[in-house]
Amino acid sequence: MAEALTVDTPDDPRLADYVSLTDVELRRRKEPAEGLFIAEGEKVIRRARQAGYEMRSMLLSAKWADRMRDVIEETDAPVYTVAPDLAERVTGYHVHRGALASMQRKPLPTAAEVLRTARRVAVMEAVNDHTNIGAIFRSAAALGMDAVLLSPDCADPLYRRSVKVSMGAVFSVPYARLDAWPQGLEAVREAGFTVLALTPAEKAVSIEEAAPHRMDRVALMLGAEGDGLSARALAAADRWVRIPMAHGVDSLNVGAAAAVAFYAVATGRPES
Amino acid sequence: MAEALTVDTPDDPRLADYVSLTDVELRRRKEPAEGLFIAEGEKVIRRARQAGYEMRSMLLSAKWADRMRDVIEETDAPVYTVAPDLAERVTGYHVHRGALASMQRKPLPTAAEVLRTARRVAVMEAVNDHTNIGAIFRSAAALGMDAVLLSPDCADPLYRRSVKVSMGAVFSVPYARLDAWPQGLEAVREAGFTVLALTPAEKAVSIEEAAPHRMDRVALMLGAEGDGLSARALAAADRWVRIPMAHGVDSLNVGAAAAVAFYAVATGRPES
Repeated sequence: MAEALTVDTPDDPRLADYVSLTDVELRRRKEPAEGLFIAEGEKVIRRARQAGYEMRSMLLSAKWADRMRDVIEETDAPVYTVAPDLAERVTGYHVHRGALASMQRKPLPTAAEVLRTARRVAVMEAVNDHTNIGAIFRSAAALGMDAVLLSPDCADPLYRRSVKVSMGAVFSVPYARLDAWPQGLEAVREAGFTVLALTPAEKAVSIEEAAPHRMDRVALMLGAEGDGLSARALAAADRWVRIPMAHGVDSLNVGAAAAVAFYAVATGRPES
Repeated sequence: MAEALTVDTPDDPRLADYVSLTDVELRRRKEPAEGLFIAEGEKVIRRARQAGYEMRSMLLSAKWADRMRDVIEETDAPVYTVAPDLAERVTGYHVHRGALASMQRKPLPTAAEVLRTARRVAVMEAVNDHTNIGAIFRSAAALGMDAVLLSPDCADPLYRRSVKVSMGAVFSVPYARLDAWPQGLEAVREAGFTVLALTPAEKAVSIEEAAPHRMDRVALMLGAEGDGLSARALAAADRWVRIPMAHGVDSLNVGAAAAVAFYAVATGRPES
């Protein structure tokens, strides 16, 4: 059972994990360096626990301390109950979900470990928007992708906003970072994957025609909103696939494109 | 050619269309009542013009007046050039896209008019989030849906954020409101459409199995994030379809679900 401690000054050092949560630049450096991430809201905190993440501490308003009673009873981590305005002064925003937890990161698996058992993998290049990363993980989980590989310049899936948008899917879909890009794709191919690049380029074949759902092992590569995949990443792919698009429309949002592509990878239509 | 007028006081009545753009409640009432909507940024303003919307006025910083020279030359509407801090005082936010236009709404077509020529229609129930509405229109345009029908409680597709997220697709995809809900669906059916309800319910058939791409005329009905379709809407459908989902995952985000469903409606996989 955790200690429940009332804290009433915003500069109390025990609240250091929660300081300036709206300062994206600060948090992007601090969290990986200190081995922590922030889970926000009851559902996401419970999912982080279920996924085996250790809790460092919790920050709650009194109302939520009741609601989270069982979580508090199961953990040894300190639980800080604070008034809502104190929470706002520490974090920099109005914590309307009422509960924050600082969780301990786990070591990431290597790409080789992730690829050993996966059959359908999403590979993201330079997706550096936290909302998009979260949305893509959520769709990957729902549509049965087994794992995600990230280029070195992708955003952190454990950043607070990514976690929230993913509804905790970042805890359940295994992921790894490729250290060398795009050279790391060679190891994906050597593990038996066909590397597909999703691109609106005209010389790409339509994704239904490519029939990725019939392939034994598929790695589907996506680029960032706007720029799409780099020339180097495109050159490193086995095949280019595109989502058939109506005339005169720029493109799908990267989250929508990912969902459609995952569906095409996951699902075989009946043959009729 | 438009008059170019420098305005230097925030309460100048000529700027009334642009006041308090961040006050969602105010703008939701004001804009439809006064028959206007706000297009933000060069691309969206140009697309609104191409789609035949009349311009009431433009609000630009000096830098953007140059860039939009051709638009200014083509319109008779007044163009107000203002300093960035004045734009911020009027609108309530930092207009980093540098250009705003107040556009005149057009009368919406009736559902019957929209249904006359359409074959693939998205029907939205109570989608009241402006970002989601915009994202769904963008996907509808890209994936070849012919039109959108809205239940009475859907958000306004011409609200500034919807327009922006849609990348202007709200101008190109025809849409109408159904006045009676869900009774209005009867007219959709009478127009020859099969009304499909997208739902995660277990008794729904998988959307590939339903093969909507083989149907002559399809109306695909979507509910809001979280709640999904109401019992009344579900009861009014011809058939329930679902996107096959991995075990233990709540659901897709409504934008992702819409994209997948539109793809399934639009695209037939080759028969191989």
